[in-house]
Amino acid sequence: MTGAKRKKKNVLWSKMHTPHCEDIKYWCRKRLPILEWAPHYNLKENLLPDIVSGVMLAVQQVTQGLAFAILSSVHPVFGLYGSLFPAIIYAIFGMGRHVATGTFALTSLISANAVERLVPQSSQNLTTHNHSSVLGFSDFEMQRIGVAAAVSFLAGVIQVAMFVLQLGSATFLVTEPVISAMTTGAATHVVTSQVKYLLGIKMPYISGPLGFFYIYAYVFENIKSVRLEAVLLSSLSIVVLVLVKELNEQFKRKIKVVLPIDLVLIIAATFACYFTNMESAYGLEVIGHIPKGIPPPQAPSMGILSAVVTEAFGVALVGYVASLALAQGSAKKFKYSVDDNQELLAHGLSNVISSFCFCIPSAAAMGRTAGLYSTGSKTQVACLISCIFVLIVIYAIGPLLYWLPMCVLASIIVVGLKGMLIQFRDLKKYWNVDKIDWGIWISTYIFTICFAANVGLLFGVVSTIAIVIGRFPREKTLSIINMKEMEFKVKTETDDETLQQVKIISINNPLVFLNAKKFGADVMNLVQKENQLLDDISKCEQNTLLNSLSNGNCNDELAQPCSSEKCSLVLDCTGLTFFDYSGVSMLVEVYMNCKGRNVDVSLASCTASLIKAMTYCGNLDSEKPIFFDSVSAAISNIYSNKNLNKLSDHSEV
Amino acid sequence: MTGAKRKKKNVLWSKMHTPHCEDIKYWCRKRLPILEWAPHYNLKENLLPDIVSGVMLAVQQVTQGLAFAILSSVHPVFGLYGSLFPAIIYAIFGMGRHVATGTFALTSLISANAVERLVPQSSQNLTTHNHSSVLGFSDFEMQRIGVAAAVSFLAGVIQVAMFVLQLGSATFLVTEPVISAMTTGAATHVVTSQVKYLLGIKMPYISGPLGFFYIYAYVFENIKSVRLEAVLLSSLSIVVLVLVKELNEQFKRKIKVVLPIDLVLIIAATFACYFTNMESAYGLEVIGHIPKGIPPPQAPSMGILSAVVTEAFGVALVGYVASLALAQGSAKKFKYSVDDNQELLAHGLSNVISSFCFCIPSAAAMGRTAGLYSTGSKTQVACLISCIFVLIVIYAIGPLLYWLPMCVLASIIVVGLKGMLIQFRDLKKYWNVDKIDWGIWISTYIFTICFAANVGLLFGVVSTIAIVIGRFPREKTLSIINMKEMEFKVKTETDDETLQQVKIISINNPLVFLNAKKFGADVMNLVQKENQLLDDISKCEQNTLLNSLSNGNCNDELAQPCSSEKCSLVLDCTGLTFFDYSGVSMLVEVYMNCKGRNVDVSLASCTASLIKAMTYCGNLDSEKPIFFDSVSAAISNIYSNKNLNKLSDHSEV
Repeated sequence: MTGAKRKKKNVLWSKMHTPHCEDIKYWCRKRLPILEWAPHYNLKENLLPDIVSGVMLAVQQVTQGLAFAILSSVHPVFGLYGSLFPAIIYAIFGMGRHVATGTFALTSLISANAVERLVPQSSQNLTTHNHSSVLGFSDFEMQRIGVAAAVSFLAGVIQVAMFVLQLGSATFLVTEPVISAMTTGAATHVVTSQVKYLLGIKMPYISGPLGFFYIYAYVFENIKSVRLEAVLLSSLSIVVLVLVKELNEQFKRKIKVVLPIDLVLIIAATFACYFTNMESAYGLEVIGHIPKGIPPPQAPSMGILSAVVTEAFGVALVGYVASLALAQGSAKKFKYSVDDNQELLAHGLSNVISSFCFCIPSAAAMGRTAGLYSTGSKTQVACLISCIFVLIVIYAIGPLLYWLPMCVLASIIVVGLKGMLIQFRDLKKYWNVDKIDWGIWISTYIFTICFAANVGLLFGVVSTIAIVIGRFPREKTLSIINMKEMEFKVKTETDDETLQQVKIISINNPLVFLNAKKFGADVMNLVQKENQLLDDISKCEQNTLLNSLSNGNCNDELAQPCSSEKCSLVLDCTGLTFFDYSGVSMLVEVYMNCKGRNVDVSLASCTASLIKAMTYCGNLDSEKPIFFDSVSAAISNIYSNKNLNKLSDHSEV
Repeated sequence: MTGAKRKKKNVLWSKMHTPHCEDIKYWCRKRLPILEWAPHYNLKENLLPDIVSGVMLAVQQVTQGLAFAILSSVHPVFGLYGSLFPAIIYAIFGMGRHVATGTFALTSLISANAVERLVPQSSQNLTTHNHSSVLGFSDFEMQRIGVAAAVSFLAGVIQVAMFVLQLGSATFLVTEPVISAMTTGAATHVVTSQVKYLLGIKMPYISGPLGFFYIYAYVFENIKSVRLEAVLLSSLSIVVLVLVKELNEQFKRKIKVVLPIDLVLIIAATFACYFTNMESAYGLEVIGHIPKGIPPPQAPSMGILSAVVTEAFGVALVGYVASLALAQGSAKKFKYSVDDNQELLAHGLSNVISSFCFCIPSAAAMGRTAGLYSTGSKTQVACLISCIFVLIVIYAIGPLLYWLPMCVLASIIVVGLKGMLIQFRDLKKYWNVDKIDWGIWISTYIFTICFAANVGLLFGVVSTIAIVIGRFPREKTLSIINMKEMEFKVKTETDDETLQQVKIISINNPLVFLNAKKFGADVMNLVQKENQLLDDISKCEQNTLLNSLSNGNCNDELAQPCSSEKCSLVLDCTGLTFFDYSGVSMLVEVYMNCKGRNVDVSLASCTASLIKAMTYCGNLDSEKPIFFDSVSAAISNIYSNKNLNKLSDHSEV
């Protein structure tokens, strides 16, 4: 008995006897994918690559955690928590094997908006001396993480609600060009936000429409306050990072373990800063105090939920779309399947539960996922192992990071965004494949740059839909079936004359309000052309009488002339996949118009629902059958009718 | 020389010599349709029916003008102006021959919203004694018409702007069920607004979301203040109107001129009211003072334009959509053509110019257009003649209407809406033809009832689009071409064995992001099924060895088995009308997957752009051709390859 059969029998059996227990088990396995893969985990084969990957991932998680927390306008340590909890929860609920959930640049950028709006920098001085009870954070810091956690909470609730409504599949509306443009635009935003650290400029938080340009305007206005030391250090870091990563890429196949240059750079920079006392000597900005340990869970500020709805929607959608693309990429590469809705649940729960642990909004990040690929990770165990190392950082190493210069961190972030920024290269592909998608890319990118990632995403989706809707009424709706291909079928049974009076048109589209009008016009054009040909034919026949040599020439262009007797039109509805009221009434109108012009219409391969709708909608000829199973049946019918007519003609004679 | 040829020659000639003069003439004829038809007006044939129609139309214009002005919350006389100016301007610019432009219930209902919001009833007492200089209207009345005229002005500007952007064709988005539901809902609103006159209740203006239900709630709360006289008079009027109109309809063919019951009723009621002094004796509400003449033109209040943007958009869209449907209906019935954009211009100018003459927003009304049909009108001359009679009413008869009871007017309005209200009968049709369109009708109607006509229209359009978008990913994307029909083509040339290893799939849809995923899954399912069959086949062959009698049985279900040698897939792209990046990359993916499974893929009848896109997008096999002009070419190629292989096999042997 095969496994599938046994399972089926079990399900059947359970339905009869104890439905609840078995159903709950099945549901749990479906909703908790960890129960599916963990028991079959191959320790021998997978543990070593997963540990290696886990260590490398931990380095990225810590670096990005610190950086994206600063991007979110909260204290860096909250980024470390954000690299820990969401990863654990995703490992339990998620199906993507190479999806490294944690802090994410795009969602951090969006939630920073809410943080800076509700708890602006200027309010710091008012509350700076009131230390709260949690790990010695100031009230100001606690208020800020409260807002970020509230965004995370609400975004998670939205994602879970979308899971309940099974909206996961609605992501088909977000096409590849839109995701590419939106992430590239957001990466540009992140680079822009790091410029102040790279140059060592003190700068207020700038956001809102066109904020992107105001930031650069501010930088150019204050070009004199640039710290040369910071510029030097960041250029050095960027050059080293790019070079070493390039070399890693080149020699990846020869030497199996790559140099964790991020880790090396962080350690080197921290030590250099500590020993040369750069903070006070050169005025370099450093990360500062990082408290040890994890504070006890606390609910996010529920009172401000209504104030962060916009940001929460942005985080929920942008985070989910970007993460799903990564999970699907992994599934495609390693031939397994990912359930859209289960991913929604996994990310939703990651956000909701983590928000109680002082976490900023989370999602899967492209750089980390690419890292998992390149270090050969096999399962989510790699992510769980990375969590152990993140925990070690939180409890032991964290405080040592005090002297990590901000400009080095910013350099790591900027270089890490390389993968997103080189998506500019896609532009050439889109240009060659489809100019319209190229246009959508460009405009989505511009919208993302000028406004924000969520605005760009919305614009991209709406314009993609609008363009498809707008293309329908312009495109051809039918094609004339090549008579040659049909000829052979009927040739044996009938004479050529009959065949030439039959025109077979195949409908290639769903027939809906978008293209019904065009369809009607197209068919009537064809029928009218026939009628016009009639005049030409008679002329042509006269010519033929005058000069019988030019006969072949004259018939060349007039392939299927319609003589004074009834001409026939066969509509092949195989391609008519679905229809609405407008489509059916147009079909009936075409039928009526053709009848008025003495053209017989037959419909081949209609679905039952189309036949029912047409019968109801139109006052169809009840004497003659007009619906046929296939084109050949329709042609046979026309042929037999013709023969009947001829017979009656003969009998009259 | 035919007219068309001469025209063409003229155009050619004008392009070479004096382009401007001829171009301007051509443009004028195109944009001023009156220049096209007026010079050829057939006085003998058309004048008499047009005069008869004009007189009957004037009766409707006056009645509806008075009523819809009250519906707009302005003084009734402004409705008379609104029955005059827009009709003249439409006659000049419009192309619909039976389109009677003037006051319109739906647009009046929308503009009433703006009037009551900006100049509420309560402000009357403050300004009632300040008589303005215009025909003795109070400042209050002048402010109210100022708002209505501003709505009309802005709506007209929006329509002209849409004309400039050539957005007329965008009305294909508004389907018949949506128009039907929206107009039925609006008619229900109009009936509701007349209830207070029918019952003789004094009632405040109620609008806003769910206002519909609040009105009936108010009526039931104040059921005791109903005036029995008003109820009696209105019931009598309604019964008489319905009966006589029904009789008119029955005997229309026998007696050519119908009884103008509206006119008779107005005259009778006015006289009765005057002689019995109903106004003071029974407290019946009457129309009141109607000033003589037309005031000099005056610009609408430009200062409040920004406050009436919502209403202006509603009027512009609802008015245009309803009017275009009528013009197209007339064009279809009498076999001429109507230009969507020219109609936009005509209605836009009607609204803009009329707004300077104290007019409420205008559009074409269904009742009046139906009247023009039934009285046999031929051209817009009927409308121009009706304008003469409306002018007579304004200058001579108007003041006599003082005693016209409001309840009689309301009865005429309600009975006049019969045509819109019986659209409920469409529901049965939609149910039988397409359940989804039925659902759209119901929900659009509910939205219109609960909110307003413009909200309903928007909801209907958005849900129609959303449903089409949502249906795409679910519907089948391809169909397997019946091998029987192809067989005959190739039979003569090749052997059956080859044919059976070729699968021809026809793509029946545009291949875009909406259905690309489904398409890929469908094709791969087919290919996988083949591979599964392989196993069964080998089993089957064993069976055959065991029991050669059951051979035929066994092959029955396994029609096209795929042997260990290469199997072929021909994708017929005739029906692939357009594509985007997602579609092309899915095609390339399918090609690659099939190659991985040792299945040869050929594409037949691709467009040049598709070939270019696929060549660029995918790393296609450069050795073998994969694009063919037709399915038969692709099959021939497969056949010749097979033969080559066989030849080489033989030579090896």
